[in-house]
Amino acid sequence: MSKIPSDIEIAQQASIKRVTQIAEELGISEEKLEPFGHYKAKLPLDLISDKPEAKTILVTAVNPTPAGEGKSTVTVGLGQALNKIGKKAVVALREPSLGPTMGMKGGACGGGYSQVIPMEDINLHFTGDIHAITTAHNALTAIMDNHIHRGNELNIDVRKLTWKRVMDMNDRSLRNIVAGLGGPLQGTPHESGFDITVASEIMAILCLADSLDDLKNRLSQMVVGYNYENKPVTCGDLKVEGALTLLLKDAIKPNLVQTLENTPALIHGGPFANIAHGCNSVIATKMAASLGDYVVTEAGFGADLGAEKFLHIKAASSGIKPDLVVVVATIRALKMHGGVNKNDLKKENVEALRSGSANLLKHAETLRSFGLPILVAVNRFVHDTDEEMEALKQICSDHHIPVETAEVWEKGGEGGRDLANRAATLIEEKPSAFTPLYKSGDSLEQKIDTIVKRVYGGEGVVFSNNAQKQLTLFKDNGWDDLPICMAKTQYSLSDDPSALGRPKNFTVTVRELRISAGAGFVVVLTGNVMTMPGLPARPGAEDMDVTSDGRALGLF
Amino acid sequence: MSKIPSDIEIAQQASIKRVTQIAEELGISEEKLEPFGHYKAKLPLDLISDKPEAKTILVTAVNPTPAGEGKSTVTVGLGQALNKIGKKAVVALREPSLGPTMGMKGGACGGGYSQVIPMEDINLHFTGDIHAITTAHNALTAIMDNHIHRGNELNIDVRKLTWKRVMDMNDRSLRNIVAGLGGPLQGTPHESGFDITVASEIMAILCLADSLDDLKNRLSQMVVGYNYENKPVTCGDLKVEGALTLLLKDAIKPNLVQTLENTPALIHGGPFANIAHGCNSVIATKMAASLGDYVVTEAGFGADLGAEKFLHIKAASSGIKPDLVVVVATIRALKMHGGVNKNDLKKENVEALRSGSANLLKHAETLRSFGLPILVAVNRFVHDTDEEMEALKQICSDHHIPVETAEVWEKGGEGGRDLANRAATLIEEKPSAFTPLYKSGDSLEQKIDTIVKRVYGGEGVVFSNNAQKQLTLFKDNGWDDLPICMAKTQYSLSDDPSALGRPKNFTVTVRELRISAGAGFVVVLTGNVMTMPGLPARPGAEDMDVTSDGRALGLF
Repeated sequence: MSKIPSDIEIAQQASIKRVTQIAEELGISEEKLEPFGHYKAKLPLDLISDKPEAKTILVTAVNPTPAGEGKSTVTVGLGQALNKIGKKAVVALREPSLGPTMGMKGGACGGGYSQVIPMEDINLHFTGDIHAITTAHNALTAIMDNHIHRGNELNIDVRKLTWKRVMDMNDRSLRNIVAGLGGPLQGTPHESGFDITVASEIMAILCLADSLDDLKNRLSQMVVGYNYENKPVTCGDLKVEGALTLLLKDAIKPNLVQTLENTPALIHGGPFANIAHGCNSVIATKMAASLGDYVVTEAGFGADLGAEKFLHIKAASSGIKPDLVVVVATIRALKMHGGVNKNDLKKENVEALRSGSANLLKHAETLRSFGLPILVAVNRFVHDTDEEMEALKQICSDHHIPVETAEVWEKGGEGGRDLANRAATLIEEKPSAFTPLYKSGDSLEQKIDTIVKRVYGGEGVVFSNNAQKQLTLFKDNGWDDLPICMAKTQYSLSDDPSALGRPKNFTVTVRELRISAGAGFVVVLTGNVMTMPGLPARPGAEDMDVTSDGRALGLF
Repeated sequence: MSKIPSDIEIAQQASIKRVTQIAEELGISEEKLEPFGHYKAKLPLDLISDKPEAKTILVTAVNPTPAGEGKSTVTVGLGQALNKIGKKAVVALREPSLGPTMGMKGGACGGGYSQVIPMEDINLHFTGDIHAITTAHNALTAIMDNHIHRGNELNIDVRKLTWKRVMDMNDRSLRNIVAGLGGPLQGTPHESGFDITVASEIMAILCLADSLDDLKNRLSQMVVGYNYENKPVTCGDLKVEGALTLLLKDAIKPNLVQTLENTPALIHGGPFANIAHGCNSVIATKMAASLGDYVVTEAGFGADLGAEKFLHIKAASSGIKPDLVVVVATIRALKMHGGVNKNDLKKENVEALRSGSANLLKHAETLRSFGLPILVAVNRFVHDTDEEMEALKQICSDHHIPVETAEVWEKGGEGGRDLANRAATLIEEKPSAFTPLYKSGDSLEQKIDTIVKRVYGGEGVVFSNNAQKQLTLFKDNGWDDLPICMAKTQYSLSDDPSALGRPKNFTVTVRELRISAGAGFVVVLTGNVMTMPGLPARPGAEDMDVTSDGRALGLF
């Protein structure tokens, strides 16, 4: 295998096209384009048209491991490969959060020869969407606090504020704060805290709205806390859904960029995949389908979280249905699911691979139970042996699961030809018969039970006392028709992060429910979910720099 | 007088040109331009060239009153008028903060027929510069807190953190917070708080830096707190000046927009005018001089704060020297300085005008003592009577001060022809002999004393015990060569906001010093200075909205 330069070296050496040219190739006139520099642009919502013949490919993965799976890399690579075999594909990806970039090395734009560019911009401020969400979120908090400070006409219970603050930064010191200190002129003392911006309900709403009006309507329904009669108080009660929508009027427009091979990519929206649904925006996905014949899009974490939410939340709300689900796996990740330590991954271990592939097989089984055609993409790494590859292919074949190797990291689109051809063939041959696993009319308990049993493979659900009380409150507030957004560890099919592979005979404990009334789902928390990350002992920021003429250094 | 529509109506009906066309008219090729949509663009720093023949006009004003002076309106109107009389003028303005937009109606883009557009964008997220500053500021805080959390190798005294956090929002509840609560995994408990972003030292630095390298060097010198030996700890000690510069690599580039009459305008940077120097960026001012023959730029508040800091801080650091200072006054404001109540301003009152004009005369006297030619611009309002106008002109004439009426709010550039002609003539006839009032070698006490006596017209300075201790500490740290940045009420020449007109026989009390080592000045606080505004009882946000197709409503 040839020596491959670093991601940023590859990205900065790419023969990037002007975004006007990428747009022109998609039939978008220069008038419609809102350029952000020469290589990024926002696209207006009226480019969305109904195009039922466009095909949607959802890329998901096994439960993530420290070995890395390369889901974004495969998504980008598959898009490039489809174009290579003569299909017109558009990639639709999530927008990375800047906060983690300051902490860990490694961007969120794919890798090797399957990246979206300009990656420095995409990983930093990009077109300002996340900053707009930060501003809208904190504007609502400021308005709420000001309402309380100025007489509290809505009778908001300061002990029951659920709307906090956000920042696009990894700052653990802001998780729990006391604000409003310093006397009567400085507001009302209250407990608060900051989540990272991508955990804001506004991010989830931006990704589920299908128009500015829908956005405004959803924003108005967001619950900020409860009054002294324990009734929810909303953004609409504070009369600022218009101002918040105004702050988001540009953020709602998808961002057009390109891959290293000039495949068009829409990067828009990136909600958390635990307390939110972890998919890029409905608007971008629909626009990609309007502009191309194939949309390749991804969902967060493994299929138990990302794909499940794509199917029960994003698909249900938007009508977008996948024609094929690609499940990304690596030999390395499956060996870890089979019990191998991270330091021993370079050694061939077919036995562990066999054992760990139970994780892949469970996801395949689940996705098929949704009525969806699937295709396993094995993202090849340097140390994978031919024996291991053969064994994995045999396992899939034994279970009648189509499987292809992807070498898109090393070879770009060229390394994904087999995957792209197989994907196109499967879509032609086997129409999707997508059916959700639960109905909106099911009770909240039933929906959660369905997910735990049919998606995670567990025995059932245990509700804490607190969660049981909340179930009653949520029903009283009319929130029981909403879909479920599970907040669970991404590392395991169960709620125990150390239970790799395919755990069995487990129950899932529900600790707490939260309402995201604007996004339109009930968040179900199992265990602790971190919504504000911290920085590592040696933050990546220490290596970052910029040359005198503005070239980014040390970013990745 | 004809009925004039609202500012936003005028702005939305303007015949706006493509920014590519505005740039072309300035001789900037499309390659050099980084468009942000069709009507805004960032310009690269290499457009700055040395052009000694370009003339700089600084617009300042009397001490502000609730009656409004219209300094930005006159700045924009004078730029338009200079172009009308055949001069090639470029306007260089400050960038408004989004926070106050949510609170009070009234933007910061000028008014009537002298506005910069697109005003909705400029008043909201614009090109993201302020968001970039917010991010860079809070990244440094997160890195500092993380350093303490991870062992505190630099021995930072958690009781002496001077670097807090910022947000571009009016949120009084964030003025004083306790952060780091929740146990050892959530950081170290400490007092903190949020300033509004434009109060960040990083904003001041961005406005004083002349290159990316200078920016980085200044950022590295910012003091974040003191260690247990009471020695300053800097951003450079935390090794993140490179990362912060990377976050600001686009924010450092000036933003090109236009006025209602298509006069080019560079809008870039907007530091506070109390704890910072209140001027737009050195880079934008220099670039405006490179692109046009006349630069019209403004400074914050009245001449005692804005112009004094322009001259002692911005000019000293950059070499930019005004060829003419235009002092904006209104009949209304001078009548308030003469003791008239806001509700009685519509009534003619020549006596009060005469008395209040002492404020104007003091500013004229001060500016002349800097060796600068001056011109008074009377920004005409509806209810000003001819008698009042004549009286004011006579007063100026008695003191040999050139004066012209400006009707730029009502008539645009056409209403500023006399002002523009007079400005051009004065610049031709009377070269500036600019000399600062103090030298960098003067002691901090001497510099402060000079400002109080020669700019404010006071008797002297009283230092609090605390300030006296700080004077010693600052000398020990080698900060006594820096210029002074006075934080004083903008409403009076003295430190008593109720002392209008021209107060005499007063001293100024210095309560506290703060170091802005990266910006390169010592902030001298007199009285309380608010660095995080609050929202009013009925926030302007309640009236804001956006139409289904994205048009802003209720902004102004």
